[in-house]
Amino acid sequence: MGSAETALALTLTARQASDFELLANGGFAPLGGYLGSEDHQSVCKNMRLTRGEIWPIPITLATDLECSVGDVIELSAPNGKQLGRLTVSEIFDRDVELEAEQVYRTTDSEHPGVAAIREEGARCLAGSIEADALPDHDEAFMRRYQTPAESKASFEERGWKRIVAFQTRNPIHRAHEYLTKAALEICDGLYIHPLIGETKKGDIPADVRMRCYEVLMDNYYHPDHVMLGVNPGKMHYAGPREAVLHAIIRRNYGCTHFIVGRDHAGVGDYYGTYDAQRIFDDIDISELGITPLFFEHTFWCHECEGMGSAKTCPHPQESHLFLSGTKVRELLEAGEKPPHEFSRDEVAQILIDAYANEEESATDG
Amino acid sequence: MGSAETALALTLTARQASDFELLANGGFAPLGGYLGSEDHQSVCKNMRLTRGEIWPIPITLATDLECSVGDVIELSAPNGKQLGRLTVSEIFDRDVELEAEQVYRTTDSEHPGVAAIREEGARCLAGSIEADALPDHDEAFMRRYQTPAESKASFEERGWKRIVAFQTRNPIHRAHEYLTKAALEICDGLYIHPLIGETKKGDIPADVRMRCYEVLMDNYYHPDHVMLGVNPGKMHYAGPREAVLHAIIRRNYGCTHFIVGRDHAGVGDYYGTYDAQRIFDDIDISELGITPLFFEHTFWCHECEGMGSAKTCPHPQESHLFLSGTKVRELLEAGEKPPHEFSRDEVAQILIDAYANEEESATDG
Repeated sequence: MGSAETALALTLTARQASDFELLANGGFAPLGGYLGSEDHQSVCKNMRLTRGEIWPIPITLATDLECSVGDVIELSAPNGKQLGRLTVSEIFDRDVELEAEQVYRTTDSEHPGVAAIREEGARCLAGSIEADALPDHDEAFMRRYQTPAESKASFEERGWKRIVAFQTRNPIHRAHEYLTKAALEICDGLYIHPLIGETKKGDIPADVRMRCYEVLMDNYYHPDHVMLGVNPGKMHYAGPREAVLHAIIRRNYGCTHFIVGRDHAGVGDYYGTYDAQRIFDDIDISELGITPLFFEHTFWCHECEGMGSAKTCPHPQESHLFLSGTKVRELLEAGEKPPHEFSRDEVAQILIDAYANEEESATDG
Repeated sequence: MGSAETALALTLTARQASDFELLANGGFAPLGGYLGSEDHQSVCKNMRLTRGEIWPIPITLATDLECSVGDVIELSAPNGKQLGRLTVSEIFDRDVELEAEQVYRTTDSEHPGVAAIREEGARCLAGSIEADALPDHDEAFMRRYQTPAESKASFEERGWKRIVAFQTRNPIHRAHEYLTKAALEICDGLYIHPLIGETKKGDIPADVRMRCYEVLMDNYYHPDHVMLGVNPGKMHYAGPREAVLHAIIRRNYGCTHFIVGRDHAGVGDYYGTYDAQRIFDDIDISELGITPLFFEHTFWCHECEGMGSAKTCPHPQESHLFLSGTKVRELLEAGEKPPHEFSRDEVAQILIDAYANEEESATDG
C-alpha cells in the first residue's frame, strides 16, 4: 500500500464532482478541501468553521474506499476524467443525523437533501485537494463557464462595483425578470448565475434553460449591465442554510449583492416562506461579504399596469395574473404561449419547441 | 442690555425657521444648535464637524442683530409665532466664499444656494437652541407631520426594519413611482418624504402636491408598506453635499435606505449627473448610518412593456415614452391627461384641476 504502483483512486459521484469543482475553482473559498470531523460538527452546530468563518453546509467526501491518513487518492469525474487528488488528513464517521437536524432542520427521509446524505453514508475522508482539471459540462453550460477569478476580472473590466447575483434553476419568466431588474436598478451589473449541478428529476434540460436566458439577454436585458455565468453547484434543498451557501458562492464569484426570494432553496413544506431571508438577520453582513436582497413573490397586476409584489401592489388577487406551474406546462405542451405579461414570447417559443422535441423523441423511442 | 426687561428678539426668515425646526425636532441630529466658526470651517473643508461626525452643509444663523456672547435671544417664526431661544456662544464672520467653493462647488451668484448665502451675509451667531414650539405649516403638510421620534415609533409599530426614504419636491409620476417601488421590493417600508421648506419659485402648491401623493397612496401603493411624512427642510441646491444632508435627515427620521437619483438636489449644470451618487463612494456607509440606493432616470418602454432605465432596458430611445416637463405642463394646462404610462390618471386629474383653479384665480384677480 502507498507505493506509486498501487495508487489509490476514487471515481466521484456527480454530486461529489460538483463539490470538487467549487473547491478547485475557488467557489467554495476559504475552503481548500473536504472538511474533517471538528469542522463538520462546528458547521452543523454553529454554522461556522472551527477557525471562525461563516460556513453553512458541510462539504464532505463520503466513501467506503479503504485508505489511511497520509494517502494520496487520485480523483476522477463520473465520466472518467482525471480531476486531481486528495491527501487524506482524517478518516471519520460524520454524525449524519446531527447534520440532518441542524443543517436540514428535519430528519425526514422524504427530504431530498437528507435522503442524499443518508445514502452517502457516514464515513468521510477529509483533506486538502489538488486540482489538475475541472469536470466537463454540457456545451450549453461551457460556453458561459467562468471561474470566480474570471467573473471578477470581467466585472472589473466593465467597471462594475455593485453586482447583484441571481440564483436560478429554471427559465426566467417576467416575475423573475422583474426582480432581477429591480435589483439591477440599484446596482451596476446583474450576474445571472444558474445552478447547473444535480437538481431534482424533471428539470428543464441544460441547453433549453440556457437558451431561455440567452434570448432574454438578447432582447430584454441590457448587454452592458448583465452577464450570464454558471454555478457548478448541486442542490441540497437545505432552504435557509443553502441560501447562505448560495450567497457565499456568489461573493466568491465577485458579486456584492445576492437575491433571496421566498422559500429560497426550499422544497415541500420543510421551511417557512421567509426562513431563508430571516437566517441573515443573525449574520453580520460585512463579515459575510455580500448583501442579501430580499424579495417577495412578484406578478403582473392589471390595475398597476406593471409588475409588483404584495409589498408594492395594493390591488386584490383578481387583478393579478397568476398561472400555476402545471397550467404553464399545459399551455406550452399544447404549443400555446402564456400571456406576454407572464412570459416573454421568445422564452415561451423556446419552451414550446423543447416540449415538441421531447414529444418527438419519445415517439421516436 | 442683557436684563429681562430688554430681552433680545429675532424674527427668523423662512429659511432660518426651517433650520430651527430641524434642529429642534431632531432632524439635524447630532446638531443641537447653530454652528460656530470652527465647525463652519471644518464642515466646509472636511465635510465633518470638529468633533468628527460627517456633516455636509453648515447650519448657521446669519444676522445683523446686535448682541454679545452669553445673550439669550428669543426667536420667532416669520408669522410671529414664538419658537424658542438661542444662547449665543460665538459671534463670527463666516467665510462665505469658502462655503460657496467647498459646499456649492461654485462661486457663481446665479446658483440659488450661493445667492442665498451671499444675501444672508457673513456675520453669524452660534449657540445651542431651546425650542418651545415648531413653525406652522399649511394644513396639507400638518396632517402628515411627524417628528423623527414619531416616524421612528411608527416604523417600529409596523415592524419595519428596512425603510427606504424618498425625497421629492414634485408630484410623483410613474417614473418615480417605479423607482420607489423597486427600492421597496428590497425593503419593508417606503417613507415618502417630500421637502416642504423653501424651494424655487413656480413650484407646485403644498396642497396640490400632497393630494398627488395621497391619491397614489390610496390607489397604487400598499397601505401596509408606505407612509407619507414631510421634511421641513429647505432646498440649498448643493447637489452632492445636499444629497448627503438629505440622507442624514432621513437617517434621523429612522430610515435605513435613501434613494439618490440622477443630479439629486442639483440645479442648472453645476453638478455632473452622478456627482451626488459618487460623493458616497468616499463615505463609510456604516458611519453614515443610512445606505444610499442609486437610481438612473427611468421611463416606460413600449418594447419591455414596463418601466425601466438605461441599465435595465436595452431598447432604443424611440421605444421609450418621453415627455418634457414643458410638454406635460402644456397638456395639463389644456386639461389633457398625459399617457397613463407616464402619469396615473388620478394624479393627472388633480394637476389639471389645480391648473384650472390657478387660471380662474388669475382671472378673478
